[in-house]
Amino acid sequence: MTATTEGAGRVTVLGLGAMGSAIARTFLDRGHPTTVWNRTAAKAAPLAEAGATAAATAAEAVAAAPLVVVCLLDGAAVEEVLASVGTAIEGKVLVNLTSGSPAQARATERWAAEHGAGYLDGKLMGDPPYIGTDNILIPVSGSGDAWAAHETTLKELGGVAYHGADAGAAAVEFNAQVAMGYEMLIGFLHVLKLVRAEGGDVAAFGERLAGSVAAYPPLLTAMAKAVANGDYPPDLGPLRVQAALMDDLIAHRETAGVESVRMRQVKDLMDRRIADGHGEEGFSGLFELLGKD
Amino acid sequence: MTATTEGAGRVTVLGLGAMGSAIARTFLDRGHPTTVWNRTAAKAAPLAEAGATAAATAAEAVAAAPLVVVCLLDGAAVEEVLASVGTAIEGKVLVNLTSGSPAQARATERWAAEHGAGYLDGKLMGDPPYIGTDNILIPVSGSGDAWAAHETTLKELGGVAYHGADAGAAAVEFNAQVAMGYEMLIGFLHVLKLVRAEGGDVAAFGERLAGSVAAYPPLLTAMAKAVANGDYPPDLGPLRVQAALMDDLIAHRETAGVESVRMRQVKDLMDRRIADGHGEEGFSGLFELLGKD
Repeated sequence: MTATTEGAGRVTVLGLGAMGSAIARTFLDRGHPTTVWNRTAAKAAPLAEAGATAAATAAEAVAAAPLVVVCLLDGAAVEEVLASVGTAIEGKVLVNLTSGSPAQARATERWAAEHGAGYLDGKLMGDPPYIGTDNILIPVSGSGDAWAAHETTLKELGGVAYHGADAGAAAVEFNAQVAMGYEMLIGFLHVLKLVRAEGGDVAAFGERLAGSVAAYPPLLTAMAKAVANGDYPPDLGPLRVQAALMDDLIAHRETAGVESVRMRQVKDLMDRRIADGHGEEGFSGLFELLGKD
Repeated sequence: MTATTEGAGRVTVLGLGAMGSAIARTFLDRGHPTTVWNRTAAKAAPLAEAGATAAATAAEAVAAAPLVVVCLLDGAAVEEVLASVGTAIEGKVLVNLTSGSPAQARATERWAAEHGAGYLDGKLMGDPPYIGTDNILIPVSGSGDAWAAHETTLKELGGVAYHGADAGAAAVEFNAQVAMGYEMLIGFLHVLKLVRAEGGDVAAFGERLAGSVAAYPPLLTAMAKAVANGDYPPDLGPLRVQAALMDDLIAHRETAGVESVRMRQVKDLMDRRIADGHGEEGFSGLFELLGKD
């Protein structure tokens, strides 16, 4: 059917992969009249059975609701689908939850502005089964008006938070949070290697380390404040003391045959910072040496 | 005075730096008759005022109690002081809380065995003001008999846990836990740099990230189990999907002018693991590529 009536609560979802389908299903479950579209129409069938309206084209789907949520494979797919939508987007709010860079988000926002649509960019931090729960985080950024108009509806998808008017901010948040995860996890595998090399029980160590990591948040908050202020108190003790400890850690790793590239990088940064006269300050001051702002 | 009477609860502390003094004071506070010694005698004065017995020599201090806790600057200082103690150590339990490597711990244990003493090695994970509270973790390892005899007394110093008969195990625990901290924190500074480069508020981001890090412990526990079992389920999704995301993260970092050495290392490991036929498995499988066991 061609649904052209707009009304409070009507939503459209473009893209019915695992994420898009979970999003559409959540909107349906919460009582929103929901129109769906997918390039491969078969994916719309289970949602249509659950009460969604399956549109024949993306343009028709966009016309059906004031709020259009897009969740496609990548930025190229978004570009292609939006090009097919044309003027139907005028006056709508486009919420793009597709993976992509801050630059892509900003480019899609320009496209939306040129076509008379409000734009929000969002990134999904979690798996499809968690859509609709607090176990998925969804940073969103872009038009403040669009956010104000649809905040309540969007918050039904999970832990949705607004990160300001820069459409790229949600992607920055996603990239920074995910990168921190990988930095932690690769470090974790290295210390597991050290424990294994020394004949330790990696599973038991992992449990103890998980307990230690749970105690880090206040330190992270304090270090971020130090960076924000450009003033670096001796967080983990004075840097000159930490540098001596780092020598010991590196020596032990190498004795145990575990690669220590990252630890050497940290030690080099410590040495440079100490040489610059900051030996009594904290670890957070290494921020100053990480490259251009 | 020369205290030569042994008795339940008597303790001796060698080395009265910030840590040693806090340890001696905690023992005194808990009612243990405490004998102290320091190379520079002046440091013993405040403890003597608080009720400790200040011994004139390390040998005299060692003779005063069945439990001798050593907390000196480094392994060289321990070697020198123990050499001066001679036969007074026979029949005692030596608990060495001085910083040092697993190899140093095992060497000191050999010395203790040769001199008829029981040996425990411990590492202090926390600052002096936390001695006597659960805010300092003290992994301890070595003689099971020594641990059984003095567990109650040692646990008065903080979160003391026994890590088995290998005297080096406490140092391994310390080095692995501390290294994990540095791996996390250098990763954290890099993501703060990314947020700053993109014009974000690093203090606000730090608070959000702290919240995310608080959710990691179950994943760490699961990944350590995967490593222990040598079986790597798709923890963060299949590795081939993660590798595509990693390309995006690296591209964004480099666009933003933030160094991406560690992320490139992770991507290289992912690519190697995928090439080895493990693209459907998880991130934890990268453990297999980290070097010799």
